[in-house]
Amino acid sequence: MDRSRLEAFSDGVFAVAITLLALDLTVAGPTGHGSLTDQLHEKWPAFLAYLISFFMIGIVWVNHHALVRSIIKVDRTLLFLNLVLLLFVVLIPFATATVADYFSEDDWDTQVAMMLYGGVFLGMSAGFGAIFEWTLHGRRVYQPLPPERHWAARARFVGGGLVYVVAILVALFSAIASFALIALVAVYYIVERTPVYPGPGDAGSDQPVLLACYPDE
Amino acid sequence: MDRSRLEAFSDGVFAVAITLLALDLTVAGPTGHGSLTDQLHEKWPAFLAYLISFFMIGIVWVNHHALVRSIIKVDRTLLFLNLVLLLFVVLIPFATATVADYFSEDDWDTQVAMMLYGGVFLGMSAGFGAIFEWTLHGRRVYQPLPPERHWAARARFVGGGLVYVVAILVALFSAIASFALIALVAVYYIVERTPVYPGPGDAGSDQPVLLACYPDE
Amino acid sequence: MDRSRLEAFSDGVFAVAITLLALDLTVAGPTGHGSLTDQLHEKWPAFLAYLISFFMIGIVWVNHHALVRSIIKVDRTLLFLNLVLLLFVVLIPFATATVADYFSEDDWDTQVAMMLYGGVFLGMSAGFGAIFEWTLHGRRVYQPLPPERHWAARARFVGGGLVYVVAILVALFSAIASFALIALVAVYYIVERTPVYPGPGDAGSDQPVLLACYPDE
Amino acid sequence: MDRSRLEAFSDGVFAVAITLLALDLTVAGPTGHGSLTDQLHEKWPAFLAYLISFFMIGIVWVNHHALVRSIIKVDRTLLFLNLVLLLFVVLIPFATATVADYFSEDDWDTQVAMMLYGGVFLGMSAGFGAIFEWTLHGRRVYQPLPPERHWAARARFVGGGLVYVVAILVALFSAIASFALIALVAVYYIVERTPVYPGPGDAGSDQPVLLACYPDE
Repeated sequence: MDRSRLEAFSDGVFAVAITLLALDLTVAGPTGHGSLTDQLHEKWPAFLAYLISFFMIGIVWVNHHALVRSIIKVDRTLLFLNLVLLLFVVLIPFATATVADYFSEDDWDTQVAMMLYGGVFLGMSAGFGAIFEWTLHGRRVYQPLPPERHWAARARFVGGGLVYVVAILVALFSAIASFALIALVAVYYIVERTPVYPGPGDAGSDQPVLLACYPDE
Repeated sequence: MDRSRLEAFSDGVFAVAITLLALDLTVAGPTGHGSLTDQLHEKWPAFLAYLISFFMIGIVWVNHHALVRSIIKVDRTLLFLNLVLLLFVVLIPFATATVADYFSEDDWDTQVAMMLYGGVFLGMSAGFGAIFEWTLHGRRVYQPLPPERHWAARARFVGGGLVYVVAILVALFSAIASFALIALVAVYYIVERTPVYPGPGDAGSDQPVLLACYPDE
Repeated sequence: MDRSRLEAFSDGVFAVAITLLALDLTVAGPTGHGSLTDQLHEKWPAFLAYLISFFMIGIVWVNHHALVRSIIKVDRTLLFLNLVLLLFVVLIPFATATVADYFSEDDWDTQVAMMLYGGVFLGMSAGFGAIFEWTLHGRRVYQPLPPERHWAARARFVGGGLVYVVAILVALFSAIASFALIALVAVYYIVERTPVYPGPGDAGSDQPVLLACYPDE
Repeated sequence: MDRSRLEAFSDGVFAVAITLLALDLTVAGPTGHGSLTDQLHEKWPAFLAYLISFFMIGIVWVNHHALVRSIIKVDRTLLFLNLVLLLFVVLIPFATATVADYFSEDDWDTQVAMMLYGGVFLGMSAGFGAIFEWTLHGRRVYQPLPPERHWAARARFVGGGLVYVVAILVALFSAIASFALIALVAVYYIVERTPVYPGPGDAGSDQPVLLACYPDE
């Protein structure tokens, strides 16, 4: 099986999910809901959650992009691991909307909403980690990692997932601290780069010239 | 006509439909609808239906992907058979939302909702079977099935459709048994693989090297 | 400019619009809206409108597909004519939902809804005709029509548009007759094939072998 | 990294955002909301805002298309600048819906809605300008602008952004004047063409023949 439809379908899901994020931003309309400025002002958690979720989906798309292009051949297992990743990506607009709706309340419900939010990111992180684990076995990528570097690479993924576990635990005590922690993760990921396999066409690659004909090069 | 836009359009519809599934998960908001934990708890049929429908669409996408790439040339008949398949794919979010809304009621309406849910999957299955039937005639796929294997292959498709007929009939007596049956079908399809034509580029293919230039290889 | 992004963007819009059609099918939920069977029964205009609009968008996608692939080079004018076509495609879910909501009323509003529905299809037809007109001038398609066949080809497009004008006029007297007429047009388009330019790769084409490397062949 | 998934993802977001614009056009239904003709009549700001936003997204897509295809190699910085652009594209349906809901009020809220509308276009313009700025440095496009033309090219972008600043300031005094100004910008952009780099395959390009194998040529 070829990579291009896996990419096309995943890109479609990422694109729809990232655009649906803004659906929850709608204000209630002119009749009987207070002034527009007040409404926009009260919606700050919605805007912050939109911003965080937008960049989280964007980052996962960037990393997905980089990981998938290093893969030689798509098999059925990879397609289902990819579906698991997308299962959580599709839940992000729902989790974002729940945080946005409940954040101003500042009670147990707000903390539950934050746990849901952290949980969806944890699931997404686990789905991505499973795809990465798949790439470590057999001859599945153009330039495989040497076995002695497997554990160091895994440690990074587990570390990323642990931050979400901490964010979920922190939400048991303070929703706003949990929100701040997840926002920091988003900022960190924008600055730091996930190490990826060098793909065909990258510097150091010894792919023959004809590969320039492959549709995603 | 070329395969790539058929794939691009179908991938788009699959991607939008699978992402819209989560639109029905929204909770009602903080004012006057009970606590968030209660709401999430009561929504278990919505989450289960989301999970089943997500993997059903995912599986059909995987199988569609595998079937279409074995096709040499797209004609107008195939485009319309594909539209029939997509007609039912697009109805899945609607059927899923109806099951989610009515499941906790446990009355005749719940059973009607389950019949609708099973009916949409039956239609999707029939649409997919029609595309498969189309591939059996003429020189339409790279490596056609020998005629003596046509009936065995058809039997698998008819068998898949029959499960949905049973699920619809079971819903006349018990919505939950019907739901469980459809969930089992989803699990079965994740584990079992639909036999597909070997495509160009697969082991055993004798396609010339220049085919590496085709955009979907 | 290249064809592939024009196709990708248009396919995306067609795919989203066709999937959003089903968003209006949602039933009102179990509390205080009558039984599910009654609701589904009363929604027959919604299901019929969904069916018609689904195949109308599908047909335009098929024809768009066939027309665009015959084009050698995309220019800015074509991009804007394509946007005009898409402007009306995007309005179809809105017009469909309006027909679905108002059809059971059977009063002036129903007739207005039908005029809106016919008007959106008329606009879509005009947008498609404008793209076809663009292909008639200069060296824009691989195998241009000889000038003496221009008027015959145009007549077919104008004829298609006239049916919608008639449907709008009929709606002034009877919404249901107008609905039936538009349904007949959809059925006609599924059966009849719009004549298109032969593209590269079709029988009769004299494209060199290297064109097999072009991404949409 | 390759251009094709950047284009596919961006095309997906543009396509979904442009289609979601029409979601706000829904009329309220037959019961107790006045006649359909009245409702459609009162919704003129919604239709006008739909039209403007549709062409604004369409124009940015056309220009994005032209700019990205001139880029030799996508890096991580470009991916994030592109996400910033898309962040504002995704907000357009929200801003459009807010203008549509508040326009008929003609009070401070209407002016706030127009400022929001202008602000989203300003952000989109800044995001596009940042991508353009990125193309000015290093060997990033096939045919770079000579340094002496950098400032003239930048001036055009800054000029475009300034119009939105003026539209936001005008909204402090008159919402309708601000609306008219933004409508004029949309009309201007349809007529005038943003200067873009000549891409490979354009007249004047000296790309070797093998580039015809690249997927977006």
